[in-house]
Amino acid sequence: MLAPVAQADDTSRPRARDIGIVVGTLSPGPHNAITDVTGVGVGHATLAQGTRFNTGVTAIVPHRGNPYLERVPAAIVVGNGFGKLLGVTQVQELGELETPVLLTGTLGVWNAADALAARLLAQPGMEQVRSINPVVGETNDGYLSDIRARPVGPAQVEQALTRLSYGEVEEGAVGAGAGTVAFGWKGGIGTSSRALPAAQGGWTVGVLVQSNYGGHLTVAGVPVWKTLPDPAAVARAQVPAPSGGDGSIMIVVATDAPLDPSALRRLASRALVGLARTGSDMSHGSGDYVIAFSTAESNRRRPGVAVQPAASVAGDGMTSLFQAVAEATEEAILNSMLRARTVHGHRGTAPALPLEPLLQALDAAGALTAPATTSTHP
Amino acid sequence: MLAPVAQADDTSRPRARDIGIVVGTLSPGPHNAITDVTGVGVGHATLAQGTRFNTGVTAIVPHRGNPYLERVPAAIVVGNGFGKLLGVTQVQELGELETPVLLTGTLGVWNAADALAARLLAQPGMEQVRSINPVVGETNDGYLSDIRARPVGPAQVEQALTRLSYGEVEEGAVGAGAGTVAFGWKGGIGTSSRALPAAQGGWTVGVLVQSNYGGHLTVAGVPVWKTLPDPAAVARAQVPAPSGGDGSIMIVVATDAPLDPSALRRLASRALVGLARTGSDMSHGSGDYVIAFSTAESNRRRPGVAVQPAASVAGDGMTSLFQAVAEATEEAILNSMLRARTVHGHRGTAPALPLEPLLQALDAAGALTAPATTSTHP
Amino acid sequence: MLAPVAQADDTSRPRARDIGIVVGTLSPGPHNAITDVTGVGVGHATLAQGTRFNTGVTAIVPHRGNPYLERVPAAIVVGNGFGKLLGVTQVQELGELETPVLLTGTLGVWNAADALAARLLAQPGMEQVRSINPVVGETNDGYLSDIRARPVGPAQVEQALTRLSYGEVEEGAVGAGAGTVAFGWKGGIGTSSRALPAAQGGWTVGVLVQSNYGGHLTVAGVPVWKTLPDPAAVARAQVPAPSGGDGSIMIVVATDAPLDPSALRRLASRALVGLARTGSDMSHGSGDYVIAFSTAESNRRRPGVAVQPAASVAGDGMTSLFQAVAEATEEAILNSMLRARTVHGHRGTAPALPLEPLLQALDAAGALTAPATTSTHP
Amino acid sequence: MLAPVAQADDTSRPRARDIGIVVGTLSPGPHNAITDVTGVGVGHATLAQGTRFNTGVTAIVPHRGNPYLERVPAAIVVGNGFGKLLGVTQVQELGELETPVLLTGTLGVWNAADALAARLLAQPGMEQVRSINPVVGETNDGYLSDIRARPVGPAQVEQALTRLSYGEVEEGAVGAGAGTVAFGWKGGIGTSSRALPAAQGGWTVGVLVQSNYGGHLTVAGVPVWKTLPDPAAVARAQVPAPSGGDGSIMIVVATDAPLDPSALRRLASRALVGLARTGSDMSHGSGDYVIAFSTAESNRRRPGVAVQPAASVAGDGMTSLFQAVAEATEEAILNSMLRARTVHGHRGTAPALPLEPLLQALDAAGALTAPATTSTHP
Repeated sequence: MLAPVAQADDTSRPRARDIGIVVGTLSPGPHNAITDVTGVGVGHATLAQGTRFNTGVTAIVPHRGNPYLERVPAAIVVGNGFGKLLGVTQVQELGELETPVLLTGTLGVWNAADALAARLLAQPGMEQVRSINPVVGETNDGYLSDIRARPVGPAQVEQALTRLSYGEVEEGAVGAGAGTVAFGWKGGIGTSSRALPAAQGGWTVGVLVQSNYGGHLTVAGVPVWKTLPDPAAVARAQVPAPSGGDGSIMIVVATDAPLDPSALRRLASRALVGLARTGSDMSHGSGDYVIAFSTAESNRRRPGVAVQPAASVAGDGMTSLFQAVAEATEEAILNSMLRARTVHGHRGTAPALPLEPLLQALDAAGALTAPATTSTHP
Repeated sequence: MLAPVAQADDTSRPRARDIGIVVGTLSPGPHNAITDVTGVGVGHATLAQGTRFNTGVTAIVPHRGNPYLERVPAAIVVGNGFGKLLGVTQVQELGELETPVLLTGTLGVWNAADALAARLLAQPGMEQVRSINPVVGETNDGYLSDIRARPVGPAQVEQALTRLSYGEVEEGAVGAGAGTVAFGWKGGIGTSSRALPAAQGGWTVGVLVQSNYGGHLTVAGVPVWKTLPDPAAVARAQVPAPSGGDGSIMIVVATDAPLDPSALRRLASRALVGLARTGSDMSHGSGDYVIAFSTAESNRRRPGVAVQPAASVAGDGMTSLFQAVAEATEEAILNSMLRARTVHGHRGTAPALPLEPLLQALDAAGALTAPATTSTHP
Repeated sequence: MLAPVAQADDTSRPRARDIGIVVGTLSPGPHNAITDVTGVGVGHATLAQGTRFNTGVTAIVPHRGNPYLERVPAAIVVGNGFGKLLGVTQVQELGELETPVLLTGTLGVWNAADALAARLLAQPGMEQVRSINPVVGETNDGYLSDIRARPVGPAQVEQALTRLSYGEVEEGAVGAGAGTVAFGWKGGIGTSSRALPAAQGGWTVGVLVQSNYGGHLTVAGVPVWKTLPDPAAVARAQVPAPSGGDGSIMIVVATDAPLDPSALRRLASRALVGLARTGSDMSHGSGDYVIAFSTAESNRRRPGVAVQPAASVAGDGMTSLFQAVAEATEEAILNSMLRARTVHGHRGTAPALPLEPLLQALDAAGALTAPATTSTHP
Repeated sequence: MLAPVAQADDTSRPRARDIGIVVGTLSPGPHNAITDVTGVGVGHATLAQGTRFNTGVTAIVPHRGNPYLERVPAAIVVGNGFGKLLGVTQVQELGELETPVLLTGTLGVWNAADALAARLLAQPGMEQVRSINPVVGETNDGYLSDIRARPVGPAQVEQALTRLSYGEVEEGAVGAGAGTVAFGWKGGIGTSSRALPAAQGGWTVGVLVQSNYGGHLTVAGVPVWKTLPDPAAVARAQVPAPSGGDGSIMIVVATDAPLDPSALRRLASRALVGLARTGSDMSHGSGDYVIAFSTAESNRRRPGVAVQPAASVAGDGMTSLFQAVAEATEEAILNSMLRARTVHGHRGTAPALPLEPLLQALDAAGALTAPATTSTHP
């Protein structure tokens, strides 16, 4: 039995659950998105210009306020550090995030960070601020975009930060995912969430990824890399898209569970569990990073407070959160590829993950469930 | 089609490849064991006494010489640090291993370490040694063994270190695996290896695990936890064996690839990729550790040498090694459970992983290949 | 002007402040000891037997209750990891201490840990406990004690844990300091504290050290190594005591400031600042470790609590705590040497730091203040 | 006896050794500069414009070649991570440096990094490079410079990289040191080196710092903060310059000793020993970083090499290197302040460290030696 398939054209590709792919045992939140963590917003600026540029910026804000004045506890975990993530040491030292998180292409991080700093410094109440720590991550979109030209600048940063959605999140070849490639197919932005039952704390964990890596593509445990066509052949590429281990993934994790920085570090590391299950070995050339933060009101950090109150989930409650982030990361990655359309770019073409053979492989392995009757994508 | 099954009685249970389970794409070495890395030896001492004690010691030696006088570069990576692994900081600081690695039950680590130190100090050439760093890991076998009695001592350490095999390795409920439980089933010692093709460097990577953890058991990508019977029901246990996230895993990785301590740290972390694929989320209560060392003759460290050689595989060569360790770890875990027989112990029974329903689930998912015609287990 | 000197015989040697050595700008607490942090207790068991054995155990308890049932947040920082500190990874993972901290000689850590585990497991309410994480540190007392014989056992652990003082702390050649050597002179146990003014939070920071390291002895900034006699000549030693960089130091830091594990890690690392100022370069062969914990009632961790409180001092309040721990560590080290008497041991003699030339050097440099009129040592 | 003093005007202030301040026991190299490590070059671009801008860029190159094509092993250690150092995770993962190191003001790091990337990508042989990891550090010069305007750009980066000196290094208020403040006095760029005797390996260790931090200024162990005038009073400042713990320090360490990344991490951490001895507690608000690299020809890393040869100093040889880096760091800091002239800037004045009271304090403490007869500064 093949699941009914959302039309696989360039504009209405499905999310994983739309076609019967269910990862794990926990239930997603209402949007199955990082925005299910109340207050978290996501904005995209896509810079697509002919075949030369396919890049952009994706912004994730921890809440609707000024994150510099109302900080959230945070942690960063490095799976494989072959990347340029900016802002790492201050987050690790202070255990807090003081800016939105931006994602973009590799050689655009510095301009994006400068633009983010400039924008934040210009906000009301920031007149005396002389230090700020932009957290800007990247993966390398140099196959589909002319990365050496470094086209991203203040305009994209501004756009991503002003077009924030606090509900549905656009996925696929948008924002920082416009030019990424995963397993030789078009990658991009994907998101997912898990809402824990009350008996497990009732917390929500949301994940957003920028997928741009490789390995042996495995979907819901099924080694579909064995049966899918060769993406290079599909693309009729002269310069094949990266399909091996090169490339990277940025993973952003949000939760409303109260967690201190130590606990957030532990949570973040479990996103790599979800990554591993998609067929990544975290190859030498990959920049695999996880940024996790807690939006719990009880743990907000405000300047001038001598003893900041905080609380942190203890003991086995962490195990449920670990499962949630592993599942949501795996599903966010699948969504990033499923929702991405074919993109013709600077050095070749990254074809969309073909749905028919994928579903055949999954169906043959008994890995499909009855799909959800309502789709949550736009 | 069901694969022909090795007789599933308590004495001749199969390894994964015997029954058509093939993990990954790389080929194992001749014994499909950590001993495929030349010079590495493994010894077991099993302490089984009625139902009260099911525990023991497993020793892994990096070569046939005195490891204190001829050290190997090493690294330790902590997946989840809820454990008692002894010797960590010195290995991380100096990047070298100066004793065999011992594995045992949780509350036995200190006696085992003292016995190991005593034994090494008594060897010829060690008369002036006043500091030594035993590396002793553990998982908690307190379900099948009366762990609070701390029965392991010098006798077991001596036995494990004098009954070394440099070829086939006994697996399942032996040595430090005598009393462990994985996913509610009997766990134990398992091993596997990968021999890289010459074009990928020709190196061998071997892994040995002591499995004692939980999660959602996944075999070759197939979520067999959905269809396997409940182990507590199989065991008719009043106190069910741990099946959730509790418990731990010790993973020992050996390679003949020349690697410096930094590279070994990277290699070790990829063992966690294999662990994740078996259904572990590295739960809160788990002690998940990886100890990796390189046996390359070129990188041996001898006292009194002012400048020691430290060659290391570079760039993409690491990616092949990463894949090898991920695959070998996953397969070693499967072997540890497949080879383990049912054990009746201190607080209940840990049943052997039932082969029939396992094979049915794998067959239904198309996850079995034609089994190897020759079995490599004893 | 030379400060009036406490009589420099073997039984009533002075603490630093007794003779006008004042470290830093902050004031000590009432006992100038780690026990100024309310609830912290210290006990010693000294094993001195002729010249063969000069070793022992020192215990530090975070409060008067059962630390397993009422845990304190904790962190461990490694200055140089050439040592055997047991229990590291669990403290780093969970950010908590669940046993007293024991200090002893290098090759005694395993027996001490086993004895500590046994003792704790036998306490009321611990009947079902099957895992425990003793934190046991060491330095190498193999010059003054026959370390290879490993004489420390349950008797010493028991004694140290039952003879706890919550006020004055015995220093010098006692407990785990019985056989240590620092800069070629007799080292040992030392302690000091700082009580922050209310405007800086009013917190107390206490430090206890086991000094057994070397370098270029510097007291209150004065390079007294230039003018002090050669300790080997003083001892008329055939086998000179270690005076260079070998050896190690264990530093235990307690505070009543509410700190989460991340903040405790930061605090712990500043103990190394105090260490550096005494003339240590943290040499290759040294095991330099800091264990820090917070006794704040608000941050206690009790089993079965789903969300544990985790308040933490913020911002510049940390700077005062950093200064306090750096000063208290430096002074605790000086106390450990000043209070230590000459010890004739297994392989030679470690002479007490000679007071006359020390005071002459300090006086010449203008580094002495008017000494305190009351002495706080026994 | 007061040492003869180099005229303390704005243009010819002395280095530490010129006035009889000798740090430690090891001898400097010929220039007492990081450039004593053969091949290391240093360039400055100073952006001084009235009182508004006092900032700039300092570049350190590991050798005369293209560092991307001929990489050096490297490590980064974080003393206190309240800073924006770019490029950290890739250096930590791969253990190598692939660009020059740039230092600048806090809010200039992103523009400097983008300019550095652009410049390197434009070099011959770099046409296909699509990823590069600029290492750019900073301290906050926002007291003397209008930091929010972010004036540093490609012109300064270009200038710093093209005016390289491989011999004498300009110190004080130049380059990235133009606007920094240390202990309330003018800080800046300073450098020093140590040349180990042949018996200790014969290696050279060089250090360059950008000093911008505070604490209790201690020179050669003497607490000169007690007797020096108040810098705010000297400056007649309405907005006092930062004198407490705020601010930061960047420390760059070069050595020709063959060291692998693990050994370089150990070496880097000892620079913090030298920092501690100047009176820093590594305050909460400080960004204290060390970047260390080895220029040893044997350890160079070139693309396309499958197994990179390497070697690393072993055992006690490390202790000598540790001492060297601690001493050179302390002296480089002193040089950075001694050589810096008074600067009138954006928000006030940072006065030069006054030499007369400094020398009086040092002389009273007997901390001066006969000064070197020849000065090595320009």
